[in-house]
Amino acid sequence: MKSLTPDELVQTLNWRYATKVFDPTKKIPDQEWAALEQALVLSPSSYGLQPWKFFVITDLALREKLVPHSWSQRQVADCSHFVVFAIKKNLSEPEVDAFLARISEVRGIPVESLAAYRGMMLSDVIHGQRSLRVNEWAAKQAYIALGNFMTCAATLGIDTCPMEGFDPGKYDEILGLPQRGLSAVLACPAGYRSDADKYASLPKVRYPLEQVIERLP
Amino acid sequence: MKSLTPDELVQTLNWRYATKVFDPTKKIPDQEWAALEQALVLSPSSYGLQPWKFFVITDLALREKLVPHSWSQRQVADCSHFVVFAIKKNLSEPEVDAFLARISEVRGIPVESLAAYRGMMLSDVIHGQRSLRVNEWAAKQAYIALGNFMTCAATLGIDTCPMEGFDPGKYDEILGLPQRGLSAVLACPAGYRSDADKYASLPKVRYPLEQVIERLP
Repeated sequence: MKSLTPDELVQTLNWRYATKVFDPTKKIPDQEWAALEQALVLSPSSYGLQPWKFFVITDLALREKLVPHSWSQRQVADCSHFVVFAIKKNLSEPEVDAFLARISEVRGIPVESLAAYRGMMLSDVIHGQRSLRVNEWAAKQAYIALGNFMTCAATLGIDTCPMEGFDPGKYDEILGLPQRGLSAVLACPAGYRSDADKYASLPKVRYPLEQVIERLP
Repeated sequence: MKSLTPDELVQTLNWRYATKVFDPTKKIPDQEWAALEQALVLSPSSYGLQPWKFFVITDLALREKLVPHSWSQRQVADCSHFVVFAIKKNLSEPEVDAFLARISEVRGIPVESLAAYRGMMLSDVIHGQRSLRVNEWAAKQAYIALGNFMTCAATLGIDTCPMEGFDPGKYDEILGLPQRGLSAVLACPAGYRSDADKYASLPKVRYPLEQVIERLP
């Protein structure tokens, strides 16, 4: 497997920034985009439950319709591919069983052999502690997917801009999500930075490493 | 900047898995670990607020003490570097002002020029909608950092295992977090998979792409 060197990784992460202005004339090539769709599919999630659905919006009219509900951020319309991260709401036993059926199918093992795993998921996410805030739990998994997506894009030299700043209710309405048991929690435009984006060259602002990381001992 | 090809990226993501058994004899070299600490520092967060602190635990006695509060998962003790992701609890105006002071310092601009940005953060995270669940909001940011961390590790050929499965109250107590206004929300062992980990060779279970991604139009 081809790996990055430590220096290449840090360079990549320093190159990434929340892109404020995308170049609307630049589109992500199909092969690159296909890899980023795989990155979404392969995102890690707790138990592997994948409590999500990703909407990839290339239609410009639809994106323009979302702009006013996105704190008027033009990246929504000007990027190459716009991704909306939605969660499956009110996760319950059928979703766990669908997942177990998928494990059984992919790994060629009887679903009965997964009884202990089923019990563990049910007693935690579906009926246990995390069930009290199961939608928040699902949303958190989507944040893992977002973190993975932005970093993957950067390794391909593709720009992104993470977005919490939109009206989820309006997004849900426009995309027809409630009737499907889904709800938008995050969005992420992807594409290429514009030469006009002055934020691209500003120094990245982070607290000093000594403040952010504590080594024990 | 050196980038991965789309194929290399997908190979890297397929290589990654939630490592169940680490080889306790293999340690992450200093240069690689330094890059992963940079990856934590450079994690994206909403507004760039970085509402977190990362604890890197190499001390074996301390890790053994955490194992029973980690659903007895041996990865906590057997990995090379164990990271606990903690959030700053009950974020309030002083944290926003500390962040603005840091922007001012790094970018060499007067803090007064950031008044509009300050107002935006306060009206959203500190006094607005998100303030009602500010700790959940901070925790979500930590999930971005986790997603970024796992993917970065994979690009260096380093294994990880995301963990929600631990007792945050016990972690907080053992690490002395409450008196510092911090709380553990996630953990992630990092290191190298053991040859004995049968999960390493199992096919990855994901829903088919057509179920996970919907393209509009």
